[in-house]
Amino acid sequence: MRTLIPIDDPDDPRIAAYRDIRERDLVGRQGRFVAEGKVVLNVLFSASRFAAESVLLRDNRVAGMEEILRRVPEKVPVYVASAAVMDAIAGFPMHRGVLAIGRRECEEDAQALLARLPKRALVVALSGIANHDNMGAIFRNAAAFGADAVVMDAGSCDPLYRKAIRVSVGAALKVPFARASTAEDMVEALLRASFTILALSPRGERDIAQARRRARTALLLGAEGPGLPAALLDRLPSVRIAMREDFDSLNVATASAIALHRLWR
Amino acid sequence: MRTLIPIDDPDDPRIAAYRDIRERDLVGRQGRFVAEGKVVLNVLFSASRFAAESVLLRDNRVAGMEEILRRVPEKVPVYVASAAVMDAIAGFPMHRGVLAIGRRECEEDAQALLARLPKRALVVALSGIANHDNMGAIFRNAAAFGADAVVMDAGSCDPLYRKAIRVSVGAALKVPFARASTAEDMVEALLRASFTILALSPRGERDIAQARRRARTALLLGAEGPGLPAALLDRLPSVRIAMREDFDSLNVATASAIALHRLWR
Repeated sequence: MRTLIPIDDPDDPRIAAYRDIRERDLVGRQGRFVAEGKVVLNVLFSASRFAAESVLLRDNRVAGMEEILRRVPEKVPVYVASAAVMDAIAGFPMHRGVLAIGRRECEEDAQALLARLPKRALVVALSGIANHDNMGAIFRNAAAFGADAVVMDAGSCDPLYRKAIRVSVGAALKVPFARASTAEDMVEALLRASFTILALSPRGERDIAQARRRARTALLLGAEGPGLPAALLDRLPSVRIAMREDFDSLNVATASAIALHRLWR
Repeated sequence: MRTLIPIDDPDDPRIAAYRDIRERDLVGRQGRFVAEGKVVLNVLFSASRFAAESVLLRDNRVAGMEEILRRVPEKVPVYVASAAVMDAIAGFPMHRGVLAIGRRECEEDAQALLARLPKRALVVALSGIANHDNMGAIFRNAAAFGADAVVMDAGSCDPLYRKAIRVSVGAALKVPFARASTAEDMVEALLRASFTILALSPRGERDIAQARRRARTALLLGAEGPGLPAALLDRLPSVRIAMREDFDSLNVATASAIALHRLWR
């Protein structure tokens, strides 16, 4: 059985990384991220690209976690606290009671990531996806439909934000991602790596149901309101999702799922 | 120009229906619902099945609402309040500042609703969809892909809950819905109305990409965790969405979008 380390004092320096979780969501964590919930920890300790630093469980949650705890490396401490101590650490009622701290690796350059993908590859490219729910949901869909990587511009939010990881059900820890500075740079990197880019747009030239998958295909998505920059749309092949003309409104993550389901095989 | 009625006192009885919005989300509103945000009000005053009782705007939001206000019936009062008064009415900071109260109609019986649909019809049937985000997103997808109605069992949550309407971008006000008491009753009503039911399940017999649309088709969805009751799955044709075996996880609303996109035409 795994050794559990009891924490009785919310100010214990060993669990400092868990303190004031919400406030630190906003200012960042200097090379760390918070993984939350059993489903996410399951990915963190089975299929993640990232290493964990520690685990913190509420005492009543230990019982259901045996299988996951068996996969936690020996050198990663597992802390246990009562509900009251846990709430005092986190700074709000932590109903879930299952947390871990992970270590971010140095972010890879988009060009380097694309270069090492297989000859047949599906990539999701994001411009201006600023909402963490959408980011998490796009990663979930990317993992479900076997996308090899996600690339994004600087206007897209952090996939390792606590809520984005949670909404992704851990996919943000699994699917490799990298950032380019602008959407134009991202498109350049994709073209140099021989990707055919399909820009998804309500006014796309071709129905996604008719789109043909090339060996290396990238699906380019923009934010729901503004969409993709016109200058980019003008020079790339574009696809649309056919829908009712009087209610042509899909969430961007939902649109990614429909398009990836059409492209993945 | 539309007459605007200024409200200076949060206790003004004319805006009583807007008081303590969040608390009353939980206890219900006796025949009313709250519509929130410009996009939702746009549907409420153009394509809704429901009548509005009143509108309440924050003073700085009036300018962008002219086009919608032009469609507000004369007998529906439009109230305007300052940010401070509005927050005091709602009981929390109302950043959006665009609200309306709508009147629920008597809920139609599922059987009656199905009976009046056209011969060629697509219906979404829901069992145990208890999360308001999922409910709203399913309505949004149902509207985008032209579903004629949504039917649901008693274990599914209220589509006219404030957040469900918001997430649906107004589709919950547009797509007709009705409730049956149990999933079994709902299935019976669909079969009696000559619907071919396709139960969506990770272990479905047939890939949704190969599913054939009948004149009257219903897509049956269960909650993500428990899924559909085994007794139902056993007696109905079932479809699956093919995805990666090592990450077979889709949000139920996302799954509805993929399946509806395959079925709608």
